[in-house]
Amino acid sequence: MSLLPIDSLETPRFCGLATFMRLPQATSLAGLDAAIIGLPSDSGGPFRTGARFAPNAVRAMSVMLRPINPYRGNINVFDILKMTDVGDANVVPGYEIESLQRIEESVVALVQAGIVPCAIGGDHSVTLAELRAVAARHGPVALIHFDSHTDTWDSYFAGQKYSAGTPFRRAVEENIVDPHHSIQIGMRGSLFRADDISQSLDLGYDVVTTDEMFATGFEALAARIAKRAAGKPAFITFDMDFIDPSAAPAVQTPEMGGPTARETLTLLRLLHDINLVGCDVVEVNPLYDGPGQITALLAATVMAELLALLAARRASQPDGRHVGA
Amino acid sequence: MSLLPIDSLETPRFCGLATFMRLPQATSLAGLDAAIIGLPSDSGGPFRTGARFAPNAVRAMSVMLRPINPYRGNINVFDILKMTDVGDANVVPGYEIESLQRIEESVVALVQAGIVPCAIGGDHSVTLAELRAVAARHGPVALIHFDSHTDTWDSYFAGQKYSAGTPFRRAVEENIVDPHHSIQIGMRGSLFRADDISQSLDLGYDVVTTDEMFATGFEALAARIAKRAAGKPAFITFDMDFIDPSAAPAVQTPEMGGPTARETLTLLRLLHDINLVGCDVVEVNPLYDGPGQITALLAATVMAELLALLAARRASQPDGRHVGA
Amino acid sequence: MSLLPIDSLETPRFCGLATFMRLPQATSLAGLDAAIIGLPSDSGGPFRTGARFAPNAVRAMSVMLRPINPYRGNINVFDILKMTDVGDANVVPGYEIESLQRIEESVVALVQAGIVPCAIGGDHSVTLAELRAVAARHGPVALIHFDSHTDTWDSYFAGQKYSAGTPFRRAVEENIVDPHHSIQIGMRGSLFRADDISQSLDLGYDVVTTDEMFATGFEALAARIAKRAAGKPAFITFDMDFIDPSAAPAVQTPEMGGPTARETLTLLRLLHDINLVGCDVVEVNPLYDGPGQITALLAATVMAELLALLAARRASQPDGRHVGA
Amino acid sequence: MSLLPIDSLETPRFCGLATFMRLPQATSLAGLDAAIIGLPSDSGGPFRTGARFAPNAVRAMSVMLRPINPYRGNINVFDILKMTDVGDANVVPGYEIESLQRIEESVVALVQAGIVPCAIGGDHSVTLAELRAVAARHGPVALIHFDSHTDTWDSYFAGQKYSAGTPFRRAVEENIVDPHHSIQIGMRGSLFRADDISQSLDLGYDVVTTDEMFATGFEALAARIAKRAAGKPAFITFDMDFIDPSAAPAVQTPEMGGPTARETLTLLRLLHDINLVGCDVVEVNPLYDGPGQITALLAATVMAELLALLAARRASQPDGRHVGA
Amino acid sequence: MSLLPIDSLETPRFCGLATFMRLPQATSLAGLDAAIIGLPSDSGGPFRTGARFAPNAVRAMSVMLRPINPYRGNINVFDILKMTDVGDANVVPGYEIESLQRIEESVVALVQAGIVPCAIGGDHSVTLAELRAVAARHGPVALIHFDSHTDTWDSYFAGQKYSAGTPFRRAVEENIVDPHHSIQIGMRGSLFRADDISQSLDLGYDVVTTDEMFATGFEALAARIAKRAAGKPAFITFDMDFIDPSAAPAVQTPEMGGPTARETLTLLRLLHDINLVGCDVVEVNPLYDGPGQITALLAATVMAELLALLAARRASQPDGRHVGA
Amino acid sequence: MSLLPIDSLETPRFCGLATFMRLPQATSLAGLDAAIIGLPSDSGGPFRTGARFAPNAVRAMSVMLRPINPYRGNINVFDILKMTDVGDANVVPGYEIESLQRIEESVVALVQAGIVPCAIGGDHSVTLAELRAVAARHGPVALIHFDSHTDTWDSYFAGQKYSAGTPFRRAVEENIVDPHHSIQIGMRGSLFRADDISQSLDLGYDVVTTDEMFATGFEALAARIAKRAAGKPAFITFDMDFIDPSAAPAVQTPEMGGPTARETLTLLRLLHDINLVGCDVVEVNPLYDGPGQITALLAATVMAELLALLAARRASQPDGRHVGA
Repeated sequence: MSLLPIDSLETPRFCGLATFMRLPQATSLAGLDAAIIGLPSDSGGPFRTGARFAPNAVRAMSVMLRPINPYRGNINVFDILKMTDVGDANVVPGYEIESLQRIEESVVALVQAGIVPCAIGGDHSVTLAELRAVAARHGPVALIHFDSHTDTWDSYFAGQKYSAGTPFRRAVEENIVDPHHSIQIGMRGSLFRADDISQSLDLGYDVVTTDEMFATGFEALAARIAKRAAGKPAFITFDMDFIDPSAAPAVQTPEMGGPTARETLTLLRLLHDINLVGCDVVEVNPLYDGPGQITALLAATVMAELLALLAARRASQPDGRHVGA
Repeated sequence: MSLLPIDSLETPRFCGLATFMRLPQATSLAGLDAAIIGLPSDSGGPFRTGARFAPNAVRAMSVMLRPINPYRGNINVFDILKMTDVGDANVVPGYEIESLQRIEESVVALVQAGIVPCAIGGDHSVTLAELRAVAARHGPVALIHFDSHTDTWDSYFAGQKYSAGTPFRRAVEENIVDPHHSIQIGMRGSLFRADDISQSLDLGYDVVTTDEMFATGFEALAARIAKRAAGKPAFITFDMDFIDPSAAPAVQTPEMGGPTARETLTLLRLLHDINLVGCDVVEVNPLYDGPGQITALLAATVMAELLALLAARRASQPDGRHVGA
Repeated sequence: MSLLPIDSLETPRFCGLATFMRLPQATSLAGLDAAIIGLPSDSGGPFRTGARFAPNAVRAMSVMLRPINPYRGNINVFDILKMTDVGDANVVPGYEIESLQRIEESVVALVQAGIVPCAIGGDHSVTLAELRAVAARHGPVALIHFDSHTDTWDSYFAGQKYSAGTPFRRAVEENIVDPHHSIQIGMRGSLFRADDISQSLDLGYDVVTTDEMFATGFEALAARIAKRAAGKPAFITFDMDFIDPSAAPAVQTPEMGGPTARETLTLLRLLHDINLVGCDVVEVNPLYDGPGQITALLAATVMAELLALLAARRASQPDGRHVGA
Repeated sequence: MSLLPIDSLETPRFCGLATFMRLPQATSLAGLDAAIIGLPSDSGGPFRTGARFAPNAVRAMSVMLRPINPYRGNINVFDILKMTDVGDANVVPGYEIESLQRIEESVVALVQAGIVPCAIGGDHSVTLAELRAVAARHGPVALIHFDSHTDTWDSYFAGQKYSAGTPFRRAVEENIVDPHHSIQIGMRGSLFRADDISQSLDLGYDVVTTDEMFATGFEALAARIAKRAAGKPAFITFDMDFIDPSAAPAVQTPEMGGPTARETLTLLRLLHDINLVGCDVVEVNPLYDGPGQITALLAATVMAELLALLAARRASQPDGRHVGA
Repeated sequence: MSLLPIDSLETPRFCGLATFMRLPQATSLAGLDAAIIGLPSDSGGPFRTGARFAPNAVRAMSVMLRPINPYRGNINVFDILKMTDVGDANVVPGYEIESLQRIEESVVALVQAGIVPCAIGGDHSVTLAELRAVAARHGPVALIHFDSHTDTWDSYFAGQKYSAGTPFRRAVEENIVDPHHSIQIGMRGSLFRADDISQSLDLGYDVVTTDEMFATGFEALAARIAKRAAGKPAFITFDMDFIDPSAAPAVQTPEMGGPTARETLTLLRLLHDINLVGCDVVEVNPLYDGPGQITALLAATVMAELLALLAARRASQPDGRHVGA
Repeated sequence: MSLLPIDSLETPRFCGLATFMRLPQATSLAGLDAAIIGLPSDSGGPFRTGARFAPNAVRAMSVMLRPINPYRGNINVFDILKMTDVGDANVVPGYEIESLQRIEESVVALVQAGIVPCAIGGDHSVTLAELRAVAARHGPVALIHFDSHTDTWDSYFAGQKYSAGTPFRRAVEENIVDPHHSIQIGMRGSLFRADDISQSLDLGYDVVTTDEMFATGFEALAARIAKRAAGKPAFITFDMDFIDPSAAPAVQTPEMGGPTARETLTLLRLLHDINLVGCDVVEVNPLYDGPGQITALLAATVMAELLALLAARRASQPDGRHVGA
């Protein structure tokens, strides 16, 4: 059985079930380098619910993407990385804590098999479960976090500790993220409390607002990220509300005034020297996409760039496979 | 301050915040006969999530409705019933059990003040919380349940006991519904297990499938309902998926082949001799309504008919106010 | 130049500008029997505005229709009636009275040329302008009015006399409709005042509610309509909210519980012995149609049935052309 | 590997790739009784294009359906029929004739393995390819055709012989359908030519218009269908425009005035004594469905009823498997 | 009763009726500094009608916003400004002149109570009514006008003087705007007449096209605005078509090629030294927003920035309250 | 009969059938300089089908545009160019090769009459037919091609030579484009094969990726284009997926990371010294536009800029009319 995606010059993109980028579905985890996994949970979401439908929506638009990435030397990602789409973790809708447990179990199965999990959320609370799974093997990771919000509040409604607004405080408390090697990028917009940003700094994170991002420039920012995460296994989490709602309208908590798709992709394509042991793209809510489904397509494109980042490093470091092992 | 709705011949319906049927908002619970309350929880929902947005969506379309009901003798419902819209219960999204607790507290406040709660859901699990509140004052109630599903499964994913699929088994177990005076109407469609229907009969409910409903005829069915609930305080719960998806597309679990809007309203207008101590209309999910928002309008119309049922009995029984007290 | 519609077996329906049923556009009014005219005014509408876009939306879906009507003896309407689509009347948006004047002028031009105006509204106030134009030639007409509302209120917001809620009181006052030969069919739903229906009876109209319509049966109702309008030039006005919102969601003031499309068409196809001097289909608001645009298609189908009614009478009365002249 | 669908009480319906009714995907054709196959071609469509997206859209909504069918004795279809979802045939968009060839090849592979093909279209021209495949094994079949149009025109634009408007004339010419054992049900609406209906009669088909269907009654009609197809291998083709657009708006050529979902399902559930060797549900165009996706759900429900018809006969005729062999 | 907004960390944003930024509703005008008022009139609109639904649509999305503004020193706007949401002015749909009168009366009530009116339109003609109300107290104001059109035509259809295309000529004629202290920013796109821009210059306005805006730079432009309005009570009117349709698609007359949301917010956050006595955000038409409702959210965000501009000046000028008094 | 568009200050834009920019419809080809023609074919499209509906969708939004272009000296395009809208070419849906033939015939009729064809597609394969028609009169043209893809693959599914992915290889093979005077601008995104870009260079085209476009700057790029096409009759083809999907979501194969509307229009307005003998705007698919229809409006705006480019040259070269003749 081939591990190469279906060729869209031979079989139209609308033929057959849509896996991510038309990858084969997993029949076994043996020998894989990385895997796409859907995490269809939205129990952690405080406002627009529906991210449970995101994994299949992102897959459906990902069939637009082609395997060669011209921004990293025309590499064919799937020649370098043996990959499949393993489907979705099971979840318990309406039960946030139980859902996180199920997600963690599914991701642990990948990580323990030496596979880099590449997840499609789900609301942002799913990242906590992923980090638990990754850290169980790699120790506390360097978190590279793209978002318009810090998600480091202590609790949400009725004092609940687990939600889309709290994972990156929990992750520090659980010692699965090393905040001193971590960075949050893209914060903007109005605040609940005057310390919404400083609370992240207090936890040890580096924080780059959207305004600072543009003042810094993308090349310098990419270098700052690499330096921050240097020497550590790294996890990239990408909340789609990092991007301006004109390009990503279908998110739970849109925040006006973010970067365009071109600016976002430019930044991602400049990332380098990151020892990626896991990544996700979260907070797509397809119920709020228009018929063009541009948020889902952009989420798929972001994931494809993360895969290229992973593949490019593997290609340059033939023994790089057991990163962080 | 007037307790009469805004006159839509003087002030256009699009002016001002939309309360249910343009009722005044509550400033006090004193002296009220009944109240509209929103229960914006969808943590119990297994499939299409988003009923958290239903109360305001139903309110927005309810401004279409006028106060005189020609199907019950041209009564003006709001001349008979002192009513307000008390807004929404607070909930904890992603935490089903905590959400039900908060809802119960809000409804208890109404019931203990002698007010008939008229609720707009939320997923169907909210009815369990309402029944707890109502039964605390009135004892086990006769449940009149319109739905295409029985919602009497024992548990759902991972053995969870509380969800939109289980409230009417829980209600029997908690002795807040008297199944032998209760009836479920409208079941149809494919089944999970061969005993999906018989499990309700085993609990003591009377069950009328959609096919049997049409075979019986609406007048005979209305009489059967009245007889079933006779002598008991009654609670009507109306799941919008009772109706065919052509008229109510925006529900969590649509079931093809139900009655039309005209058939549904005809049945409701034939109901009589019911001692109503509470009611709800649930499972609207406005994210799935088209631009015409017909599901929200139909839900509002169903609630207006339940209010007319309540008002007509009050009008005919001047001392009927403290029903079941 | 041919006066026959484009053949959709030769030229796909999506080719070219969409006129009503692909009729030729008018280059002259000479020799025409009837004409489609759009009346794109919505200044009379109290709630959902946007009927200004209805004429072109109905035209766009009318390309689905074919010229042969099997319900009236397989007649080809356009073999019998010389017709064109004359485009739209000019209007003054936001200025109701001025808009009605412009519409009246446009319809007068048709009527005075002996052409039966077949109009696509617009909100229901446009019918007043049409009736003025028709009555100027034919005298007070028998009005056959399909609607869920009587539209015979005296005034609307701030005492304004001209709106979608008042035309059929104005028409009696202006002596352009003979209420004693007129009939209103389809009233249903909640009322503003207890006399919403009786005010029409007081004006002289016959009124048939939706419930009475079904109790009467369509054949008997068609006979009652014919008898009511006998001996008079007649005008049929069809408000799309006559139909249930499941089949016609895109209207200004939807009213739940109406007839289906099949029931509606069955009634229209039973109409007979009506001396039609004008007709319209009003209150489509395409902004509220879903992507299937079923309201616009149904409005086009209703108009096609009215054209067939007109054509069938012409075919049976070769000298019937100058009806009411 | 289990051949039973995923249990939606254990794993939420939104988890994982959506196959038809959550059936397993094919890994082999051995031992199967029937198979779902998508035929994503719309090159034969004269108006609203996009049926290429129908198979996956119908699958996505089919996860709502449960395996037990209470209308045929609470059978579990998948206990009786060994089934999988084999995915989609490959097609050549924009090349109608080549697409039909590819579809035929895919269906032949199933039929030759003794598997009953249960197809999700695609525009209606795909049925010609299916009939070719089925007839190659079973000889000319009895066609049971639900539709609002006869699709027996001789040619369409520019004299093309193959399109969604012509398959059932071609099928007679190619001797793959036996018209004298075949029946077309549901024709209605305006016609291109006065002989649109009689041309089918001339070919040998029995034709039942929508009006005649209601006049006959569903039980009598089901008996007439059984009698017509008696003794022959039968193929059921179901064009979604058979149903009224209020329940099935997302079709290529909607025709107002059809049966409701309830009426449609009632008729299908009454079908009996049919030796089914293949079936399809065609002409869903998900681009025209509203957010509720009711057309896709109804199409899935229709297919589920056809599967139950097939299963019920198998259950009653244990040796019935090699029907028509 | 608290004048602070509801805390969205305690009560989910979807709970309760949506006021602007979850502000309390007005129970009295006493002691208020500023107030949100909806002006739901669209009778002045020449093309896409429906802005009557804008105030509630903007409120619904404004619940996303939080009270702290990090762009003006982390001020909490509502600690500085005592504010409520007073609901909507009454209007007379279809009667432009009468609607403007009603709006003026509502705004006068605020202004005469010393309250800064912060209005959500409505089409752009509502600004004329607001300016009349503001000028009655403050005299001719400095107008700061963001828009892609000048709206200084003399008349529109049939010579009508009052419409969304004419208010800023009328305002000069009525001496309620001082054009020599006023500025129009953002003009772009094709023109009706060659003097569409110069007619504004002739009236005395300063005009900055979109191209000139980018050539000038936002900091210099903010200084130019401050200088232009120096020493005058100022009114900011913000037409959402100032922004590119990718970020604000739901407007009456979209004009391609405008600034992004980020550019727009950057400019607004640079405004300073403006003595604001009133402001509005107009021309949202929610019927044209996609499911993501990004236009409504952006309009709410723009208003929040105007409130922050007002609050920041108050904070810096403790006696600044009776500005222009 | 006037050849000037309808004045939208006198007649509202929603009145009457929508031609491009409200141009008169053609009654004769005599004396015309240029003409709008719709090419409603989508048989060449590999993914999202529906461009057959684009010409009328673009026309419907083009009524927003006004005749004066301030970016080229306030010229009135229609004072300089005698133009009409000639309607659509006939096509054969599902038959790509036959459709191209019909389109070629329609365009030849214009070109042979000395009229510059200004076409609204259709999928990108229609450009091949246009180029055949133009080259038949002018010889091989300089192609100026805006797109995110090169469309120079050799074949698509099943080896088919004619599709939206192949026209610019075919055009070189057919010697109707001179690649050495041609340029492709805007390529970006993932690739099928590593030589997707270099295959165009091998054919002789100049290729400018999106990244190179921004690195070059628009003024320099406009000069490079002019130099490339110097001395040759030129054809501009504009695929809407050149633009970022945030501004043009409704295309067949959206590609994230493109220029904004403002950047795109800036580049087009800088074009100069081009001897335009034909142009098109293709790949709008209105089924994927949101309710704001911004893709259709942007496509209309792009075409208006191309008309201005044509008109400005004519104005500066009074004898420029018979360009390339």
